[in-house]
Formats: sequence, structure tokens, C-alpha cells
Amino acid sequence: MSKNIHVVIMAGGSGTRFWPYSREAKPKQFLDVVGTGRSLLQMTFDRFNEITTPDKIWVVTNEKYDSLIKEQLPELGHDQILLEPEKRNTAPCIAYAAYKIMKQDPDASMIVTPSDHAIFKEKEFLEVIDTALNDASKEDHLITIGIRPNRPEIGYGYIQYISEPGNNVKKVKTFTEKPQLDLAKKFLESGDFLWNSGIFIWSIDAIVRAFETHDEEMASLFASGLNEYFTKEEKSFIKKTYSHCKNISIDYAIMEKAENVYVVPGDFGWSDLGSWNALHEIREQDENENVIEGSAITYESRNNFIKGDKDKLILAHGMEGFLVADFDDVLLICKKEDSSIFKDFIADAKAKKGDKLT
Amino acid sequence: MSKNIHVVIMAGGSGTRFWPYSREAKPKQFLDVVGTGRSLLQMTFDRFNEITTPDKIWVVTNEKYDSLIKEQLPELGHDQILLEPEKRNTAPCIAYAAYKIMKQDPDASMIVTPSDHAIFKEKEFLEVIDTALNDASKEDHLITIGIRPNRPEIGYGYIQYISEPGNNVKKVKTFTEKPQLDLAKKFLESGDFLWNSGIFIWSIDAIVRAFETHDEEMASLFASGLNEYFTKEEKSFIKKTYSHCKNISIDYAIMEKAENVYVVPGDFGWSDLGSWNALHEIREQDENENVIEGSAITYESRNNFIKGDKDKLILAHGMEGFLVADFDDVLLICKKEDSSIFKDFIADAKAKKGDKLT
Repeated sequence: MSKNIHVVIMAGGSGTRFWPYSREAKPKQFLDVVGTGRSLLQMTFDRFNEITTPDKIWVVTNEKYDSLIKEQLPELGHDQILLEPEKRNTAPCIAYAAYKIMKQDPDASMIVTPSDHAIFKEKEFLEVIDTALNDASKEDHLITIGIRPNRPEIGYGYIQYISEPGNNVKKVKTFTEKPQLDLAKKFLESGDFLWNSGIFIWSIDAIVRAFETHDEEMASLFASGLNEYFTKEEKSFIKKTYSHCKNISIDYAIMEKAENVYVVPGDFGWSDLGSWNALHEIREQDENENVIEGSAITYESRNNFIKGDKDKLILAHGMEGFLVADFDDVLLICKKEDSSIFKDFIADAKAKKGDKLT
Repeated sequence: MSKNIHVVIMAGGSGTRFWPYSREAKPKQFLDVVGTGRSLLQMTFDRFNEITTPDKIWVVTNEKYDSLIKEQLPELGHDQILLEPEKRNTAPCIAYAAYKIMKQDPDASMIVTPSDHAIFKEKEFLEVIDTALNDASKEDHLITIGIRPNRPEIGYGYIQYISEPGNNVKKVKTFTEKPQLDLAKKFLESGDFLWNSGIFIWSIDAIVRAFETHDEEMASLFASGLNEYFTKEEKSFIKKTYSHCKNISIDYAIMEKAENVYVVPGDFGWSDLGSWNALHEIREQDENENVIEGSAITYESRNNFIKGDKDKLILAHGMEGFLVADFDDVLLICKKEDSSIFKDFIADAKAKKGDKLT
């Protein structure tokens, strides 16, 4: 592999699906959701630190998380933390990183990754990344990593590829956003649909050319900052640029339009940790399918996720399928399957107790 | 009514059925279980303060609760708090109080009452007490207050009386301890069985004579202290006496043997508050039968008892028939019907965290 590998970690999300643990002030990527002692962001950094050096790892995040990033990833230099003044979805985030990296290292390969997913088979993951990097270093390809689906999930985007035996880099046929259940079932049966992991690999050259072709406006916005990146004018340039910039995803701006889109299928114990239920599935369970964090005793209780503080004893009796999250000034007890109700919890908690809870 | 009315409140119990709120160090009678701002002990005091003066209200309790009594009932003089060095059931407790009061006021009428029950119709209650006091002041009767049963409860003692129209003071035929369910159902149908409330009314003369007749050993033990009561020797006398004394209930020692036992039936909103479920029934419920203490929001939840701190927001979703008790270093979530499991909770909590939790 001839090119330098740069990794761009997108860490600006402010989801509250793990509320009350994840709050606006400290969303999921900054939490040790999996219980390893490292946050999801730190685990993402560690994973890519295997294939490149810390000086080539970049984090794009919202301004308000600047100090959290510095605290959790002291390995990063000041210039490696790209601060967004406003939320603008993934396309501007990626354009900013691509043009900034291009100024320093125009021959680079670039990996873009979310910061809040879990990957349990690192070796298999790195093999998939290696396959994609090899291809991206030689070809003008925009590559995504696709996950082999194991259920007809309706919450994910799907990627259909053109089957070609013997080649691990597959040409993409279609992207489909969150399908209905019967469609998702057909996708699962067909065997040539993958989940969209949100991990992208390409050369700087390829992605810059793609912006120029498919979103000229965004391309010229971020190209006009080439004098400012890595200077003290970068911040004010970005503030101005983001205020003009469209709110658009990379899938919609580029991937669904480009002809040179490829996917590498992977099977490496991936979870987007999109709900407590998803987290429950990947955590170590006791003989009654309970996941317990902290100090708890269960009686006639199955399939619960109980998360408390070790200094507090939780006794659970006759519970099935519940999440018990005892954290600070909130105790949440709810059916963990029913993640759609979390929006109500948070709105109601806010109404009752004010912003500090959310 | 010619005699002075003395009230003896038995407050030595150390039950943990309202654990984690009630603990060995602060059992139920010292807690504001009903949510009025006054503990059950204080409410018992208040109730009898309507018919006598504070200097004639006595509390018998375990030594370890001395300071709790003084704190909750500052109206009591030092001599009115009778401290038991060991647990010895109700007969020694009542004998101690009877002989001590006899020294001061041999013509007294005496009411004995538990400290941890709730009574919701005070006017009706005081009428029943008045009926019993009137009878006890004229006759050599040992009177209990019986509760009209409303369900075939198997956890209580029953009193069968001899029906005699027009007289509210009924002669007792039999005492039956905790019956089987089919027997309890027959008791309920027959109409001449009452629950034993544990409230007794008699003259000092009658109860002392009853001890002399039915438990001569206990009578002479406590009679031998007549020189010590109200002196600084009382404490050491009681210590010695209790170490010799049988562990026996007043029902077994006296009431089931004596011929002159009567009962006044009452219907005054009585509850022994023997379980969270019993407490749930008497508390104000919302439209979904939830009782909420503290700060909680419920979703698709029915028939729960949720008790937390007002500074902590509890969100409950999809719960039915649960107790949620969030208190200090314990969070208990359990099916509230299943009060038999509380013993396990407490034993397990002790094993896990040590004595301080129980």
C-alpha cells in the first residue's frame, strides 16, 4: 500500500437513545457503553491506531465537545480536531476533512467512520478495511463497508451489490433507505443486500473529484479554504462556510449519484448500538438472559438490562424484558423493546425538571 | 367515666416488611408510611391524645429505640418510656406497664395498642373505644377490639363472639390463630367472627387479677418490682426480670384462658399495613391505580406503588403490579403481591452488602 492512511472519525452526534446516560452534554460516543473502560470514541480510535499513526487520525465534532475530545483522546494534536459550529450532516463534515487533509497530504487514502458503533471481531474488521484500502489506493473508487444482515431490520439503510464471484470489492447497484418490514425480509432472503455501516474508504483524490462532479457548490465552498486550513483563520472560515452550507448526507450528496461506488461486505461483529435492546443483545448475559451492570440481585426475572451504580444495591423481582437504568437524578424503568418511547421520556423529563436532565 | 385513662403504646417491633424503608434501626412504626407527615407512632399518640392527657400515655419499646421515641414524642416524660432490654412478646410488655401504672394509679383504666396500624375513621374508632372503656370501668372484663372482616384474610387471628342483639360488648367464644383459606372463608360468611386488632381495654385491677389467675409466675415477677418502678433501680430490676421472663403473647397467656373476655366490634377503616400491597390499597391512587410518592411519570403502567425521592425523577413504562422503592443505597423493584419474598431480599442484601442495609 503506497498511500498514507488518514482516518476521519465523525463524533458530532448528540443522540439520546441511551438516556439517561447519554445526554446532550455527553452523548453516546463519549460513554463506555460496552463496559470495557473505554468510550466508544476511544475504542474507535484504538481500532484504527492499529493501521495508522495517531497524527493521521482526525476527529470532526461539534464545537461543544471540544474539551471532551481532548480529554478522551489526548493523543490528538489541536489541528486534528475539526470543530463544526453547526450541525450539517455528513457531507459537509466529510468535505471539510477531505479538503483539509488534501492540503497536507494530497496522495492520502482516507477512511471515514462513525464513532459510536461497536465492532467485536477486530481482526476480521481490519482485513475488510485492508481489502478496501488496497482497492482505493489503486482505483478511483468510492467504497463503503457493508454488513451482512442477520435480521430484517427496518431501521437501517441497505446496499444492493452486483454479484461477481471471486471479488471482495463489489459494484453497488442501489441504495435503499429504511425499508418496510416485508421489503426488509426480501432483502434478507435475496442475499445481495447489505446494511450500510457508514464507513467509507477512498483516496483524497477520488472523494474530491466526486464532490466536484456531484456537488460543485460544496466542493467550491471547502476548496476556497485551502489557504486557511492549519492557520488561525481556519475557525472563522469554517464558521462562515457552515453558515452557507447545505445540510445533506454523504449518501444523498455523492454515494447515490456516483457511478464508481463499491462495497466490501464484512462480517465482523458489528452493532450500531442503536438502542438498549441492541446493547442487551451484545452484552454478556447471565443464565436468565439478564445483563447486569453495577450491583444487582434478580429473582424470577428474565431478559432484563439492569444498569446501576456499584454502590447501590438493586433488587429486581418478577421482571421480564425491562431496562432499569438508575443514574444520578433519573431512574428509568421501561420495556426495553420499546425504544420509540424514549423521545417521550426525554420530552417529559425536560418539562418536569428542566433542561439539565436532557 | 370515673377512672383515669392510661394508654400503653407497644412500639418495640422491628419488622422489615417495608424494607428498604423500614430497617432494624428504624422500623415501620417510626416511619411516615401513610404520607401524612407524622409517623405511625405519632399518629397513634395523636389518636389517643383526644381522650386522655399526654402524661397518661406510655410507650413500651426496645432499649435501642429510646432516642427515636424521645425524638418523635417529646411530649413524653422519661418515666413514660418503658424500655425492654430483650424481645419478650406482648405478655411481659403488658405486665410491665400494668404493674408500673398500678403503682401510680391503681384505679386506672388501661388501653393497650399497637403503634404501627392505620385507622382512617377516627370518630368511629373513638366511639368504639368509649364503649369499651365504659364497660371496663364498671365490669371485671378483659376487652379486645375486633374488626369486621372484609375478606378471608389468612394472616390474621380471628375472634368468634356470642351474638346477643342490642349489646355492643360481646362475650368471646373462641380465638383462632391464622386459619387456612377455606376456614377463613367460612369465618367471613358466618358473620360472628372478627379480626383481632391487638387493641385491649381493661381496668388495671382486671388485668392484674388475670395475670395472678392465669400466669402466676409472670404476675409475681412484675409485682416484685413495685418498689423499683419510678426509681433509678427500675432499669436494673427490668433487666434482671426480662432475663427470667417467658416469651409469650398476651393472647396465649391470658385471653385464650380467661372466662371474662369480651369484644367490641368496630368498623373504623383499620389496616395493619402488613405489606406494601396493603399500603397501596389505602393510599390515594391515580386513574391507573398507581400510587406515586416523590416525582414520577408513568406510561402504560397500572397498579404500581412507586416511591422515590422528590429530587429524583422516576420514569416507569409498561409496569403492572410492581413496587418501586428507591431509597438511599437500595433500589427495590418487585411484584408487590409477593410479600413473602421480602425475607429473601433482606437476607440477600445483607449477604451482599453487610448489616447496614437491613
